[in-house]
Amino acid sequence: MSSEFTITRTVEFAETDMAGIMHFSNYFRWMEACETAFCRSLGLPLLTFTPGQVAGWPRVNVGCEYRAPLRFGDTVEVRLLVRKIGTSSITYAFQFRRSGELVAKGELTAVHARGGAEGGMTAQPIPAEIRAKFHEAPAAALQ
Amino acid sequence: MSSEFTITRTVEFAETDMAGIMHFSNYFRWMEACETAFCRSLGLPLLTFTPGQVAGWPRVNVGCEYRAPLRFGDTVEVRLLVRKIGTSSITYAFQFRRSGELVAKGELTAVHARGGAEGGMTAQPIPAEIRAKFHEAPAAALQ
Amino acid sequence: MSSEFTITRTVEFAETDMAGIMHFSNYFRWMEACETAFCRSLGLPLLTFTPGQVAGWPRVNVGCEYRAPLRFGDTVEVRLLVRKIGTSSITYAFQFRRSGELVAKGELTAVHARGGAEGGMTAQPIPAEIRAKFHEAPAAALQ
Amino acid sequence: MSSEFTITRTVEFAETDMAGIMHFSNYFRWMEACETAFCRSLGLPLLTFTPGQVAGWPRVNVGCEYRAPLRFGDTVEVRLLVRKIGTSSITYAFQFRRSGELVAKGELTAVHARGGAEGGMTAQPIPAEIRAKFHEAPAAALQ
Repeated sequence: MSSEFTITRTVEFAETDMAGIMHFSNYFRWMEACETAFCRSLGLPLLTFTPGQVAGWPRVNVGCEYRAPLRFGDTVEVRLLVRKIGTSSITYAFQFRRSGELVAKGELTAVHARGGAEGGMTAQPIPAEIRAKFHEAPAAALQ
Repeated sequence: MSSEFTITRTVEFAETDMAGIMHFSNYFRWMEACETAFCRSLGLPLLTFTPGQVAGWPRVNVGCEYRAPLRFGDTVEVRLLVRKIGTSSITYAFQFRRSGELVAKGELTAVHARGGAEGGMTAQPIPAEIRAKFHEAPAAALQ
Repeated sequence: MSSEFTITRTVEFAETDMAGIMHFSNYFRWMEACETAFCRSLGLPLLTFTPGQVAGWPRVNVGCEYRAPLRFGDTVEVRLLVRKIGTSSITYAFQFRRSGELVAKGELTAVHARGGAEGGMTAQPIPAEIRAKFHEAPAAALQ
Repeated sequence: MSSEFTITRTVEFAETDMAGIMHFSNYFRWMEACETAFCRSLGLPLLTFTPGQVAGWPRVNVGCEYRAPLRFGDTVEVRLLVRKIGTSSITYAFQFRRSGELVAKGELTAVHARGGAEGGMTAQPIPAEIRAKFHEAPAAALQ
């Protein structure tokens, strides 16, 4: 049972843009990398394929607030916190810190969904055995 | 003076992920492509470099809400609407439509900022001649 | 039956890096976008899924030679030429031109392959009805 | 003085495509990440900005040969070998291994170049103090 997870990343050259900073879209890839590592630590895959069926966590809502730019070579701590566990969705909050300074805050809500081979996915209540692995972070940690 | 702009894009193979849909981070690249085309239509560059000085529109807040997945080859209309013109920032709303269906909604707030060669950028009031080119969209269009 | 295809693209902000030019990896995405449009023009999908079976064109060899950098907003013609049709593979040559100037040359060899639901793909001879759609470009065009 | 360097990476969800494998363009980002780490280990930046002047290693030629696909979560060793030190260029060879199996081979030639603020860069002989840090790998290692 877990409510948070942290990874550390370094800004790569290909992640910068001509303004000399990390392109704003890449923060979402970092959030997902942190979510992947968190789920892996819980023994949960981000996506499973069984014949004729896909199960995963499609995103329904994401956001990011940028406070200070990140530059090539910056080492950044990406911290995930479980903000809310709903019936069929989970909301994560993310904090990006460089040398302790909060440089960005993110949020991502994913829905537990299943789909057939033809593509459409529909939201499903999170099964109890999966739900039991997540724990909401204390309000103080989320500020 | 303009309050909206529309581009049309087709989902590329490299924009999909193993779930068979457009990766959620790519919607932000599409928003930026639409913003770029909008600014170009107004005669405004997204970024200017003059010796020792950079001026641009760094992002301070972005978000996206996903309603239906996009697939390889889907043709999508991305519509930008000027939601709010602040003292030093502009907020855009985005609507993604496939065959008329609203599949995603986005938002992006950018700040008019200047910086020196060493990198730091600071927010600046939007000059009157630039401000005069933008016009807030009517509330009805933003729903 | 066709031996060439051309698309036109404009360098996007997200495609640049901190050196102020298009990141070298993005040329490969442009090659693929051109290949996709070419195959679509021939009525051939880049990838097909049927229950329990995937058929597509995995890449076995790619390369790119860069002659002049591309910058944000540059409009570029990407021209595909069918260089070689093998038993189970096709090799495309690509020419990138800005205002007529050859700024890069690329190459991509893809293999016609099929695979099962579990992932492994194996090369297959290109069926005659597909092969009939491709035509090798004249040597003069490939220089 | 060094002739090789190795990093380890895990395939991220955002690096996959709808064929369920790592998109072929991402191998080039991994090569660059390995080159960056190698140069950093030698105390050499990939790019330097001094007022009015940029110095870096623009790419002139890259290639990749794919032997087996990589999947989400695969852990891969990326090994850089210095293949050739020219007057103004360096050619690196890359080997991608998963559990010891060679799954891809890459190559990247970069030129030591300088440019002014306006953007054009021109090749420059590699200064002796930089050249002294690189060492060509033995032929046996490059096979």
